[in-house]
Amino acid sequence: MTKLLILNGPNLNLLGTRQPEVYGRDTLADVEALCMSHAEQSGTNLVFYQSNHEGALIDRIHAARGSEDGIVFNAGAYTHTSIALLDAIVSVELPVVEVHLSNIHAREAFRHKSYISKAALGQICGFGPQSYLLAIDALNAHLQGASGQ
Amino acid sequence: MTKLLILNGPNLNLLGTRQPEVYGRDTLADVEALCMSHAEQSGTNLVFYQSNHEGALIDRIHAARGSEDGIVFNAGAYTHTSIALLDAIVSVELPVVEVHLSNIHAREAFRHKSYISKAALGQICGFGPQSYLLAIDALNAHLQGASGQ
Amino acid sequence: MTKLLILNGPNLNLLGTRQPEVYGRDTLADVEALCMSHAEQSGTNLVFYQSNHEGALIDRIHAARGSEDGIVFNAGAYTHTSIALLDAIVSVELPVVEVHLSNIHAREAFRHKSYISKAALGQICGFGPQSYLLAIDALNAHLQGASGQ
Amino acid sequence: MTKLLILNGPNLNLLGTRQPEVYGRDTLADVEALCMSHAEQSGTNLVFYQSNHEGALIDRIHAARGSEDGIVFNAGAYTHTSIALLDAIVSVELPVVEVHLSNIHAREAFRHKSYISKAALGQICGFGPQSYLLAIDALNAHLQGASGQ
Amino acid sequence: MTKLLILNGPNLNLLGTRQPEVYGRDTLADVEALCMSHAEQSGTNLVFYQSNHEGALIDRIHAARGSEDGIVFNAGAYTHTSIALLDAIVSVELPVVEVHLSNIHAREAFRHKSYISKAALGQICGFGPQSYLLAIDALNAHLQGASGQ
Amino acid sequence: MTKLLILNGPNLNLLGTRQPEVYGRDTLADVEALCMSHAEQSGTNLVFYQSNHEGALIDRIHAARGSEDGIVFNAGAYTHTSIALLDAIVSVELPVVEVHLSNIHAREAFRHKSYISKAALGQICGFGPQSYLLAIDALNAHLQGASGQ
Amino acid sequence: MTKLLILNGPNLNLLGTRQPEVYGRDTLADVEALCMSHAEQSGTNLVFYQSNHEGALIDRIHAARGSEDGIVFNAGAYTHTSIALLDAIVSVELPVVEVHLSNIHAREAFRHKSYISKAALGQICGFGPQSYLLAIDALNAHLQGASGQ
Amino acid sequence: MTKLLILNGPNLNLLGTRQPEVYGRDTLADVEALCMSHAEQSGTNLVFYQSNHEGALIDRIHAARGSEDGIVFNAGAYTHTSIALLDAIVSVELPVVEVHLSNIHAREAFRHKSYISKAALGQICGFGPQSYLLAIDALNAHLQGASGQ
Amino acid sequence: MTKLLILNGPNLNLLGTRQPEVYGRDTLADVEALCMSHAEQSGTNLVFYQSNHEGALIDRIHAARGSEDGIVFNAGAYTHTSIALLDAIVSVELPVVEVHLSNIHAREAFRHKSYISKAALGQICGFGPQSYLLAIDALNAHLQGASGQ
Amino acid sequence: MTKLLILNGPNLNLLGTRQPEVYGRDTLADVEALCMSHAEQSGTNLVFYQSNHEGALIDRIHAARGSEDGIVFNAGAYTHTSIALLDAIVSVELPVVEVHLSNIHAREAFRHKSYISKAALGQICGFGPQSYLLAIDALNAHLQGASGQ
Amino acid sequence: MTKLLILNGPNLNLLGTRQPEVYGRDTLADVEALCMSHAEQSGTNLVFYQSNHEGALIDRIHAARGSEDGIVFNAGAYTHTSIALLDAIVSVELPVVEVHLSNIHAREAFRHKSYISKAALGQICGFGPQSYLLAIDALNAHLQGASGQ
Amino acid sequence: MTKLLILNGPNLNLLGTRQPEVYGRDTLADVEALCMSHAEQSGTNLVFYQSNHEGALIDRIHAARGSEDGIVFNAGAYTHTSIALLDAIVSVELPVVEVHLSNIHAREAFRHKSYISKAALGQICGFGPQSYLLAIDALNAHLQGASGQ
Repeated sequence: MTKLLILNGPNLNLLGTRQPEVYGRDTLADVEALCMSHAEQSGTNLVFYQSNHEGALIDRIHAARGSEDGIVFNAGAYTHTSIALLDAIVSVELPVVEVHLSNIHAREAFRHKSYISKAALGQICGFGPQSYLLAIDALNAHLQGASGQ
Repeated sequence: MTKLLILNGPNLNLLGTRQPEVYGRDTLADVEALCMSHAEQSGTNLVFYQSNHEGALIDRIHAARGSEDGIVFNAGAYTHTSIALLDAIVSVELPVVEVHLSNIHAREAFRHKSYISKAALGQICGFGPQSYLLAIDALNAHLQGASGQ
Repeated sequence: MTKLLILNGPNLNLLGTRQPEVYGRDTLADVEALCMSHAEQSGTNLVFYQSNHEGALIDRIHAARGSEDGIVFNAGAYTHTSIALLDAIVSVELPVVEVHLSNIHAREAFRHKSYISKAALGQICGFGPQSYLLAIDALNAHLQGASGQ
Repeated sequence: MTKLLILNGPNLNLLGTRQPEVYGRDTLADVEALCMSHAEQSGTNLVFYQSNHEGALIDRIHAARGSEDGIVFNAGAYTHTSIALLDAIVSVELPVVEVHLSNIHAREAFRHKSYISKAALGQICGFGPQSYLLAIDALNAHLQGASGQ
Repeated sequence: MTKLLILNGPNLNLLGTRQPEVYGRDTLADVEALCMSHAEQSGTNLVFYQSNHEGALIDRIHAARGSEDGIVFNAGAYTHTSIALLDAIVSVELPVVEVHLSNIHAREAFRHKSYISKAALGQICGFGPQSYLLAIDALNAHLQGASGQ
Repeated sequence: MTKLLILNGPNLNLLGTRQPEVYGRDTLADVEALCMSHAEQSGTNLVFYQSNHEGALIDRIHAARGSEDGIVFNAGAYTHTSIALLDAIVSVELPVVEVHLSNIHAREAFRHKSYISKAALGQICGFGPQSYLLAIDALNAHLQGASGQ
Repeated sequence: MTKLLILNGPNLNLLGTRQPEVYGRDTLADVEALCMSHAEQSGTNLVFYQSNHEGALIDRIHAARGSEDGIVFNAGAYTHTSIALLDAIVSVELPVVEVHLSNIHAREAFRHKSYISKAALGQICGFGPQSYLLAIDALNAHLQGASGQ
Repeated sequence: MTKLLILNGPNLNLLGTRQPEVYGRDTLADVEALCMSHAEQSGTNLVFYQSNHEGALIDRIHAARGSEDGIVFNAGAYTHTSIALLDAIVSVELPVVEVHLSNIHAREAFRHKSYISKAALGQICGFGPQSYLLAIDALNAHLQGASGQ
Repeated sequence: MTKLLILNGPNLNLLGTRQPEVYGRDTLADVEALCMSHAEQSGTNLVFYQSNHEGALIDRIHAARGSEDGIVFNAGAYTHTSIALLDAIVSVELPVVEVHLSNIHAREAFRHKSYISKAALGQICGFGPQSYLLAIDALNAHLQGASGQ
Repeated sequence: MTKLLILNGPNLNLLGTRQPEVYGRDTLADVEALCMSHAEQSGTNLVFYQSNHEGALIDRIHAARGSEDGIVFNAGAYTHTSIALLDAIVSVELPVVEVHLSNIHAREAFRHKSYISKAALGQICGFGPQSYLLAIDALNAHLQGASGQ
Repeated sequence: MTKLLILNGPNLNLLGTRQPEVYGRDTLADVEALCMSHAEQSGTNLVFYQSNHEGALIDRIHAARGSEDGIVFNAGAYTHTSIALLDAIVSVELPVVEVHLSNIHAREAFRHKSYISKAALGQICGFGPQSYLLAIDALNAHLQGASGQ
Repeated sequence: MTKLLILNGPNLNLLGTRQPEVYGRDTLADVEALCMSHAEQSGTNLVFYQSNHEGALIDRIHAARGSEDGIVFNAGAYTHTSIALLDAIVSVELPVVEVHLSNIHAREAFRHKSYISKAALGQICGFGPQSYLLAIDALNAHLQGASGQ
């Protein structure tokens, strides 16, 4: 049975109360519940982790090796600045799908660049909490070898 | 019943034979069949169009207004250079999901920028033909108001 | 009797319905009617052509040599990206006045640059349909040698 | 009855003698006479002011509030460097049409950028003294609400 | 009674011993004592927190919501690199005044840019420990609606 | 008794009527009255000068040498473009505090850069008229040697 | 027997009449006749195609696969802007020699960059119609394995 | 008999007291006396003018036409920012030699660029007051046709 | 007896298993053992610390003051992004030698820049674990005043 | 009888042994023999010179004036950095054809720029030793006035 | 027995007398003596060469192939500008260790970039003459396969 | 008696025949004769050296230490590219005056930058051979302490 880590970075603990016009009104717990119910359908096991600490996120990615089969990663603002998180992903050699609630390419220029992308399978952004569900599907399809490229 | 346009840009007619190490071995017909079968499950109607002509793609986007409910758009190389396609999307005021077979953010720098993103709901890239299926789901969820965004 | 080509580029066929807060509520037909009535006063003959295809616009510019005396050209989004249209204008050696409905210098940075400008007599932008009428006057004045510069 | 300020910036007092191959052979007095005769046709009142002093131009723009209905402004070389003139225009909330004798977009790169444009209705450039006449027409049309924009 | 968080970022715990020619000879405890005595005059309550950890600063900003009325924030070197701290400030919707001991605009180019500024009320820099006292006054004035802005 | 010059640059004479959503509703006379009443408390003598002329501001800075003890300087839009004002400040060797009504770092990119900063003690921006009062305090503290910096 | 496609892009149909001081006085028909006579000597079969439409050029490149053995390609102004043509060349996996009549590296800066070069065997520019003859020789040598590198 | 204008820009009235480690200890009067005594040897007539006002410098350059034979111009900080002064020089068609007391190319990067240079005969910088004497010699040699250039 | 801190940043705990083709097959424990045995020869005392947390690295650098005589620092990915670590090094005024296992100047462009370098004695990179041994020698030589620099 | 200089720059003496996957396996002597045999057919006289010294290449170019009729020049790495070689070519006013063994436009970005191009007739690159033969033909055609340009 | 070339570039012959505050007081002979005595310990044979001529350095690198086992290379100012030296190193396929006396990353920006680095094993900089000794050790360790890299 | 080195770089040996419209018609011998006759008046001893080799120029600058009192240096195209020549000048600690025949600031952008300027007393450019005479005067004045600077 597949086990995935749903990893969330800085400020995502405030989801639902933080700028709802940008990030929506669901709390992180709501999003995690949505994920859980979506994953059940495909028999996927989910583990959740959120931290505002770059170092804690690196530690958790390291711990995923040998523990989870893949990572759905919303690195929040660290997406744009953290080479260390990129290196962590490369180090553990697990498939990673990058997600964002908002369409980062349609926002301020400093949010267009992603270090995470350089090592991720792919990127899904702009669909609110739905982004996570699509990422779970994408990761499952990848792990089942169902996706060609 | 929802009706979506699956719109493909330049060189995607060569899919399956063109650089399979980058774009996979499925032909465009294979991808369209995959989409069709995936859409059937959710009772979605699909229309397909591919062209290598920027002007023809603009014309087809214009024609979608009043005809389709949303667009899954892989603009190929025009993604990075066409302000006219961006303007066409803005003009017809239909929801558009941008897709790419490969992870454009992990390739050459000139493929990182997308004009389409400035008007799209969101972007899904890097999952091969699976990118299209995820985009159909994302568009359906958006049209059903299920996505909080 | 002077004969001018009023040439419109991509998405201008949607005028009136497309982003009326930016481009106004007149349709392209309305604008052409305005031009016609304005041109009659000065005994100018007008020919209209619109296309979303860069190649078709190049073809039409080529055809203008020996057929029309000057061109009022709104290249739409191709203004900012098409060196081929610039080359076409240079090739036919006809006076061209560049027009835009909106003030392109007050919009997104990627709309500030114009390849058309490098070969045009001058640029008129920001006055809505009125921009075309001013351009017809400017071209007429130029053809009559009334304009010193 | 409409009253417009025709405002000219640095070095325009030398018009006619300064680089006639770029700016034409009409003196500033000639241009003002042309404007006067053109404005008479439409019953428009014109006031003229020229200064080489950035501060004097700012002072005159301030004075236009409550005194004139709009400004035809050729800021000369200050066009490309003066944020203070931009602020002055924004401050007085009068419609401004930016004019240039030469096509600034076809000259040196440092003349392509305009701070004035960020607050002007529109820009007319490249038609020699004719640029001023077109600007008077554009401003009149705007004040009469005739221009859709 | 107003309650303010005086928040200090990386390396500020070394104040007084670290590069005294740049940052002065007062220790952080000295600065906090100065703030305390200054705040007493205006009946303001102060809470102090310092950390070298970006994540800990984010956590503390989150905790300020519902607990303090505003933040005087010296983000130290994170000022120039942390989008996550910017997002944290935006998330909690509290008034923030950015302070720096030295005049960051007169130092190395990489210290001129501030992500904090994009969400702060204002910035005060260059006055040594006095910067904090001015910031407390500015925040008080803002909270009393005394500042017109 | 300390004597300070409160120096204001271009367009600040329009304060109160100019973009009140950015600069507030107080007129320059209001701001000067506020400063006067604030300065009385600390026994500081204030002199006021405003000009839209870059040269006049340079002349006034020169005149301050031997006449005033320090300058509170809001250079308006010249902040971002005037190397000559920077040179003037350096020349007279008086302490200068740079002030701005709005938070220039949170506005258009061309307002982020300050030449004045390279020679000022520090910068205070974003607090409306309160910025001036804080600057008077900062300058007084500096002149009394109370600020460590 | 070797069969080569001589492919010409936008505005090259005007050859001979368009800016003869830059591109020479031979018409496209003259150049094609020169090529034909040159190719006869080496027993090479030539096919000619010219279009002003980017999409039509892409279509023709696609059609070359399985039909011609190599392409001599003068992409005109699309050289500098078309990633789609680059992708088309990569897709069909035929040897391509890039030619230009003028020395593009000695002209305006925006003509120095070539997307075509990224996938071409090599580039020949600056020799007028002679560029095509050299390209035919280069392509023949390559196809005969006579060229080492 | 040759008559030259020695024209000085912003802050040069403070010469001798302003940053003597950069500009030397001679006052502007000292420098002018040096020039006068140097010019006497070659029978050259000198006229002096200094202003901190960009507009006043433009006015004085205009006035030089028909009055002086050439200009030795130290534009101070306006050297690096004033396109209007460049235009003024071009307008009056008099030979101009650009001078600077300090070696502007060895100072801050923003002092390396000169708009004045684009229209000057040549530039002499770095020799303190001696720069003016060399410039007078250079201008004399040019006016006598002795300099080959 | 000399005491040195061997400080390792993010992802270096994975050494030996992480991208061995880039970083080699020795684990961090292996590298530390190598260092220990190398240091014994010169009678140097070594202390080891590794963390993935930027804040923890700053804390450890602070603690080194008064405890160790110098630091061999491999800041990993923080090398390229952390101004806070640079400030920490400057603050404690200990000699620091920057090391990297790989030659960072021969990798991706974003790895060429080092903030650590601005305060380090020197940099040693590209020699795998050997880099650390060389750094210990360099630091010892520096502390013994043997290096002329 | 035509006499051409075949001029080779730095590292080309190592041809055949140096990176054969980039530059091919022919030695410089092989390439020269190929050129000789090719030139015999057209009755062209060839002279060869190679040096690793920029100054020696300049000297040899100077010597070519009055001695040879044209130059086939592979400047190697000096292509991208030597303005002095560009000046040398301009000085001697001989026709120069720039050649490269590899397609420099498809390699590292720092190899895309050529100073030689600014003064060369044209550029031929990417065809290995064949590049030289094509260049001899191009130069011969140019000298015979057969090339229209 | 291992034989290494110690290669020094421009101005290093002046060592000891040239800017001793940057490069130390040892002459090049002193440094070579230090190297010799250090190399004796490990039974390494050293050969020295210094030249101010880029071409001579290229020649010497070529000569090292088959003669020496590795190169310790201080390219001086050519480090930052010479692609030809980079090509020479790549051509001879010998291990090269780049050294600098000063920490080039802490000096002017134009000294931060190294072309040599792109082909060197690694870089050692900032330790004065000690840099050479460390480089000899690093090269020996590499040649003995002792370094994992 | 003062002894000066007149040092000329690449291509200056061709003076008089090379691009006379840019560099004038005097040969290098003519210029040297002019210098000689000018120097005689002030009792200055001149030594001349010209080379096209960067290394030879460095060698000659080194030799000037202890032999000449100052250098008039026209580095030709090496002005814009040679950090090694800059280092050579800094090393010998002799006063250097940079000269150019043409006004390099009014030519191509790549000729605006001078590495020589960073260490020169000053720069004189644009006066043809007269530039050298002015430089001799400037150097003499400097050596006599007559120039305040």
